[in-house]
Amino acid sequence: WEGRWALGAAAAAAVGAGLAAWASGHAPLAFDALRARGAVLRADAGAAPCDAHPASAAPGYASRREDLPEYTAADVSTHSEPKSGVWVSYGQGVYDITEFAKGHPGGSEKIMLAAGGALEPFWALFAEPHGKLATLQLLETLRIGNLRQDAAAAAAIADIDDPYAEDPPRHPALVVQSPKPFNAESPAATLADARITPIPLFFIRHHMPVPLVDEKDYVLSVGDTRAGASSGTLELSLDDLKKFPKVEVEATMQCTGNRRSSANEVKPTKGINWGVGAISNAVWGGARLRDVLEAAGIDVEALATGEGEAHVRFEGMDLDPSGDPYGSSVPARRALRDGSAVLAYEMNGEPMPRDHGAPVRVIVPGVTGARSVKWVASLEVADEESESFWQRQDYKIYPPNTSFDNLAQGAKHAIPIQDTPLQSAITSPVPGATVSPRDGEVACAGYAFAGGGRGILRVDVSFDGENWTQAELDRPQKSAGRTYAWTLWKASVPIPESAQRAAGGEATPLRLRVRALDDEHNTQPSTAADVWNMRGLLTNSWHSIDLVLPGKGG
Amino acid sequence: WEGRWALGAAAAAAVGAGLAAWASGHAPLAFDALRARGAVLRADAGAAPCDAHPASAAPGYASRREDLPEYTAADVSTHSEPKSGVWVSYGQGVYDITEFAKGHPGGSEKIMLAAGGALEPFWALFAEPHGKLATLQLLETLRIGNLRQDAAAAAAIADIDDPYAEDPPRHPALVVQSPKPFNAESPAATLADARITPIPLFFIRHHMPVPLVDEKDYVLSVGDTRAGASSGTLELSLDDLKKFPKVEVEATMQCTGNRRSSANEVKPTKGINWGVGAISNAVWGGARLRDVLEAAGIDVEALATGEGEAHVRFEGMDLDPSGDPYGSSVPARRALRDGSAVLAYEMNGEPMPRDHGAPVRVIVPGVTGARSVKWVASLEVADEESESFWQRQDYKIYPPNTSFDNLAQGAKHAIPIQDTPLQSAITSPVPGATVSPRDGEVACAGYAFAGGGRGILRVDVSFDGENWTQAELDRPQKSAGRTYAWTLWKASVPIPESAQRAAGGEATPLRLRVRALDDEHNTQPSTAADVWNMRGLLTNSWHSIDLVLPGKGG
Repeated sequence: WEGRWALGAAAAAAVGAGLAAWASGHAPLAFDALRARGAVLRADAGAAPCDAHPASAAPGYASRREDLPEYTAADVSTHSEPKSGVWVSYGQGVYDITEFAKGHPGGSEKIMLAAGGALEPFWALFAEPHGKLATLQLLETLRIGNLRQDAAAAAAIADIDDPYAEDPPRHPALVVQSPKPFNAESPAATLADARITPIPLFFIRHHMPVPLVDEKDYVLSVGDTRAGASSGTLELSLDDLKKFPKVEVEATMQCTGNRRSSANEVKPTKGINWGVGAISNAVWGGARLRDVLEAAGIDVEALATGEGEAHVRFEGMDLDPSGDPYGSSVPARRALRDGSAVLAYEMNGEPMPRDHGAPVRVIVPGVTGARSVKWVASLEVADEESESFWQRQDYKIYPPNTSFDNLAQGAKHAIPIQDTPLQSAITSPVPGATVSPRDGEVACAGYAFAGGGRGILRVDVSFDGENWTQAELDRPQKSAGRTYAWTLWKASVPIPESAQRAAGGEATPLRLRVRALDDEHNTQPSTAADVWNMRGLLTNSWHSIDLVLPGKGG
Repeated sequence: WEGRWALGAAAAAAVGAGLAAWASGHAPLAFDALRARGAVLRADAGAAPCDAHPASAAPGYASRREDLPEYTAADVSTHSEPKSGVWVSYGQGVYDITEFAKGHPGGSEKIMLAAGGALEPFWALFAEPHGKLATLQLLETLRIGNLRQDAAAAAAIADIDDPYAEDPPRHPALVVQSPKPFNAESPAATLADARITPIPLFFIRHHMPVPLVDEKDYVLSVGDTRAGASSGTLELSLDDLKKFPKVEVEATMQCTGNRRSSANEVKPTKGINWGVGAISNAVWGGARLRDVLEAAGIDVEALATGEGEAHVRFEGMDLDPSGDPYGSSVPARRALRDGSAVLAYEMNGEPMPRDHGAPVRVIVPGVTGARSVKWVASLEVADEESESFWQRQDYKIYPPNTSFDNLAQGAKHAIPIQDTPLQSAITSPVPGATVSPRDGEVACAGYAFAGGGRGILRVDVSFDGENWTQAELDRPQKSAGRTYAWTLWKASVPIPESAQRAAGGEATPLRLRVRALDDEHNTQPSTAADVWNMRGLLTNSWHSIDLVLPGKGG
């Protein structure tokens, strides 16, 4: 959770009464209007067609069949386990895959991610066999009904007292960490299956309710409030923004708290207990930030290369309980370094989905996710950084012995996080899995990512921490010499002979670990203790998972 | 040592017969002309006025006195220990400081760095009390003679069969790691005493003999050999170069092998066993690289911002035994990123000294020292990186399990080192020192430095590895938003109570450790094992030293 943490008395007064109670996403939310309706919302969201994929079923398949009954998305979502039967939707079809899932060639763990929800995002990941006619024909043999397409049912349950009532439906495969505000990981097991994360599986990290913005009314205001600035304010509609040259940038977004769970194993921190899935990768389409600032009469070249320390501030349309918007800023030189920052109105070729900032969000590649403001309402070049809580108090690394009780002492050693350090994780196998070695080796896969445009030079994987296998890398394209998207990796790692001998009889525990090296030769710390901080931010230690090697007997 | 390492048979043939025998600086050098004459050269070098400081004694002091005998630099150098008497030179004076050194207010360790040599570089460091009249008057009371200024004695001993015979004299305080080629550390104890390292104490890292270049004959050739390039070759004399706008850049140079000794503690590597002193900081004055390339008709803006992967190659005038010059290259985008790269003809305001590349050397701030070619003869924009051994084979990080026997396997995971990762070290107290706590705290100091223009956010110092004290930082100026010079730090670190209790009786060992955080939140690995590689390059683990806490009895 990167919301407001419990502030000292003075700070709380400054920010506004009542905000001090705006507590962790783990704790019950403090204001009256919120009620625990997450279950209903999730059931509703479960099988509803995800807003960004309205028609992604293959043509001629999964269309309406008059001979079958109608089911709602809620009906599908109640069938997410073998004991209730496992249903999924695809296009206009509803299918019972209870028996099929048991013998699924891709592994029952992966197909079960779709249980109770839509198949579409997974078919995007596994396009190779799944796109084929035979697979579609097979699926049709499991058909039990039609999915009721009308959204009225969902709207009917909206509660006008709940500020989260208008949040969009989400895919049930997302690993929900906090329902209100909605925070969910991308399911780790599929993260390394495709460079581009399907929209319904892209992690979501909200601080507040999702604002409802009619794109016809959307206005982006662009200004310059520096001392001595002469330009006025430019106002742009979505259509205006689309008149700028359109660029597409592949960039990885990562929550500043990704992998906080590793920090919590050392000592508790404050925040959502994120695993390795608060990171995803997409292609963002829109207008360049620098083109838009230039259109507002701002000397972009001077900002990008000058000695001064101007900042580009962003404000969103998501409001906190006191009515203040989410806000952040990036130093101008960094925001403009190579034209990679985008005001994005598309994600993976689709109109920007509500959960990712519709109609327009900021994307500053290489910089921590918290600066890429969603539902952006204003851009402003300013002498000082954003005055928001999230810029001035939160999203900073405090020294290791600083706690919430002695903030002031640590604050002088903290600066707002921008470019992020090197990260890597194992996403397959899943933790605790019993492995099936082939020729004494275990196949594994995952991601590696460095902020600041740095690429990945090497990924090392090891069981014993002494013998390291270099993984095979799937690196992204560079943009102006910089690398803004993650590198996916896979490897076959030899099981140490000692473990193989030990496993002659009984099942034996094995720890698999990964570490990366970026192309400027930065490294990851070996343990989370080395970078522990009270907020558990930027936890990027070597990632490890425990596996089980079966004994020869079974 | 970053010379040529033993190559595989095929590679050796490719590089040229005989070079495979051009072994480590530790091993005897292989070619006939070299003889072990280091002692004579050092004796000569000891008290000779360093070439960059011909007249740095205070006016009116340390001038010739007719009543005193004459001594040569060699005479002074034979008095470097208490048992022979401790002599130093200053200006034209020779002084016996045997008794004075014992009670020196700055500590006898530091004054003893000058024993047998010249005082000038230390007076530059300790300008505060030393510059004062009283100190000069005190020194004059210790006067025993005049320093013979004539250099004929040195020339007379030159051996024309020795390729190193023309190497310049050096200050005896340098910590010599290899006499031929000359490689020496800056004395660690004084490294953190001043932001700008005095020239005679600046570390030296040579691959070959120092070339003798008459600045009147100096020609820099500038060309563009990219496919389709149309510009010809520009030739510039030193006077031509001085007509470009002169810039001064404060930048830290660090040998890629600095701190290799920490890697060697894990497992032996190949190379000079550098401690923490293969790093120094200076102000470099000269013409901007980009201005010079522009003058040669090259489109610098396209190089700096384009998608292509052009390189700027540099060749020196220092020749290997087969007559090939030292060479390296830097990707053009990096070399031109903000105009910080300089063709330097001045160092700390003096004409470039021979040992640092006279008359002109390359300085690429933020990039590892090996790319900042000394005695530069040519610049060339090219499609491919330099073909030199030092670019293509050496100065790369090979994977941890790669050895000289399986190079090819590791080579595919290695790229030439450019920007360097975060480094830090404790330079005071010296390892093994018995500390004198004040209020239960030990005072310490050192440096921290990150390549790539990253600044230092925080330096943590600790005795127990759990409670970390944040050091006070002396940060450099930024240049176009980037930080190219080191940060010096100092701290008072509390001694853990358990150690204080243990020291009630006997002397107790204490381990002091330091780690830094750069302003893009990169960290150092906790142990050298985490970054061990067969060449021991870029060893940047947390630095620690062992100290002794005296018992209460003594």
